[in-house]
Amino acid sequence: MNAFVTGAAGFIGSHLVDRLLADGCRVIAYDNLSTGRQEFLHAALRHPYFRFERGTILDAERLRSAMRGADTVFHLAANADVRFGIHHPRKDLEQNTIGTYTVLEAMRSCGVRRLVFASTASVYGDARIVPTSEDCPFPIATSLYGASKVAAEAAIEAYCASFDLQSFIFRFVSILGPRYTHGHVFDFYSQLREHPDRLYVLGDVHQRKSYLQVSDCVEGILCALKNGCASVNRLNLGADEWCEVNQSVRWITEYLRANPTITYAGGDRGWIGDSRFVFLDCTRLRSYGWRPRRTIREAVVDTLEYLSQNSWAVAAAAQRNDCA
Amino acid sequence: MNAFVTGAAGFIGSHLVDRLLADGCRVIAYDNLSTGRQEFLHAALRHPYFRFERGTILDAERLRSAMRGADTVFHLAANADVRFGIHHPRKDLEQNTIGTYTVLEAMRSCGVRRLVFASTASVYGDARIVPTSEDCPFPIATSLYGASKVAAEAAIEAYCASFDLQSFIFRFVSILGPRYTHGHVFDFYSQLREHPDRLYVLGDVHQRKSYLQVSDCVEGILCALKNGCASVNRLNLGADEWCEVNQSVRWITEYLRANPTITYAGGDRGWIGDSRFVFLDCTRLRSYGWRPRRTIREAVVDTLEYLSQNSWAVAAAAQRNDCA
Repeated sequence: MNAFVTGAAGFIGSHLVDRLLADGCRVIAYDNLSTGRQEFLHAALRHPYFRFERGTILDAERLRSAMRGADTVFHLAANADVRFGIHHPRKDLEQNTIGTYTVLEAMRSCGVRRLVFASTASVYGDARIVPTSEDCPFPIATSLYGASKVAAEAAIEAYCASFDLQSFIFRFVSILGPRYTHGHVFDFYSQLREHPDRLYVLGDVHQRKSYLQVSDCVEGILCALKNGCASVNRLNLGADEWCEVNQSVRWITEYLRANPTITYAGGDRGWIGDSRFVFLDCTRLRSYGWRPRRTIREAVVDTLEYLSQNSWAVAAAAQRNDCA
Repeated sequence: MNAFVTGAAGFIGSHLVDRLLADGCRVIAYDNLSTGRQEFLHAALRHPYFRFERGTILDAERLRSAMRGADTVFHLAANADVRFGIHHPRKDLEQNTIGTYTVLEAMRSCGVRRLVFASTASVYGDARIVPTSEDCPFPIATSLYGASKVAAEAAIEAYCASFDLQSFIFRFVSILGPRYTHGHVFDFYSQLREHPDRLYVLGDVHQRKSYLQVSDCVEGILCALKNGCASVNRLNLGADEWCEVNQSVRWITEYLRANPTITYAGGDRGWIGDSRFVFLDCTRLRSYGWRPRRTIREAVVDTLEYLSQNSWAVAAAAQRNDCA
């Protein structure tokens, strides 16, 4: 495979790159390094089959010229800042929706016929049926992030019908693991490192979410690529379990040997557009033989271990969050 | 009501304007006159409650300044050129998706809280369940036009959740009636006027579509506005019947007293992205007391009567189609 990976220096992107190289693929990594880190590509950069191209997906000309020779595009670049969408609605539109059109046009221009797209469980909004399957009732969008990914999915599907492409659209739950410096694990870790005696939690104790370890995520993508033969392949990608936020709090405080006083912000969700219960029906992907190897608890601990051992990444992420 | 209508000089827009004025509303009409016709607003232009503003929905500043004072936005402006999407994919993205974001941002800036949006049965793609209800299984987009409207719908829903707006999203079947100079009735009429002895039909004889007369469409919109109280109100809007393309051909040839040799292009649909069977379940809107008053046959004949009596509109549309 000649892979072209957008967002290649990001959390999931860099794990995917490592795995593709290990499998013997040639990889062109494309990233503007706005949130991605070149450090994540440390090993890849020494590999003879690897090439890094710095650029934004909104630069159509640069994207097209970098993509030449690829046969499969993994489009992972996105604004993944779900929580702060209401502060800059245009960011999701530009980076997720318009960015995906730019990628699709570059593929058309370069004759690349296969696309893997990182979508999200957020497309289901407040799902009425849980566990939620790919064919659940036509959802109502509840976040600007979710809406921008719904738009990108629909654009991809229309391109498949119009221009004979094949697509694999993965609706991820929250992905955890090494190199992950976002989300609640990072937030709780950072809080407790600063003051181990107190912890502030958004929402209430009973929000339920499913998570997945990043290596299971990458494995799921590659498994689907081997087995899916439809023009449009839509696949949920998540664990077969979920946890309440207070379970996750317990795992994290145990790992850090902290005993904080916990304050819950209250309300039935973490922020506007947040979902109270995320749990995906992954029967379709499991029918291809894939199954997660790490539990949610293990995925949380893997993330904590990485953070403990990589204070540079914690500091860099903290600085980025301050600037956002 | 202080109404702001985008696409006000278009087919449906101009009928809506006439009806709103007749109901005693104040109306600001916004249109760039790219496909809309000032002639359609002939009567409205003499009404004291009417104001016309020429501008594109992509001009955020102009849109915002024109919208001031409105309490309800009817967003009808769009690229409605469904069939030729594959020739210019960016047009649907810009005019339908990005244009809707611009309208939403203008509403936020002007404090307008209620939005009526003209969506389409095309969001259902090749619907697996017919008649298709608003809550059918999560559809797969099959046209760039449909995808751009899916994107716009999702953006509207996310804005409702994020910024406390109320929306009415109408998924229209094909609308027919006076001032309609697109689609198959116009196409067949034009062909038969030029050469009554032959007719060329896209697809095969068995494509099935539902249609609705424009006055029934406007009535449905206003009925829903009176009765819908959810934050997001999604409503199918179509007739309780459908017709095969060969029935429609018969009505048109009878009206024109033509007896053409008919050639079918073949294939199971009219063009890439076209749907073979469009028929919507309108139970939700009917529960508010609305029902269509004109049959599909009557709607076809109304359209033909308008075309026969307004050769200027036929000529103008033919010229526009040549330039497209």
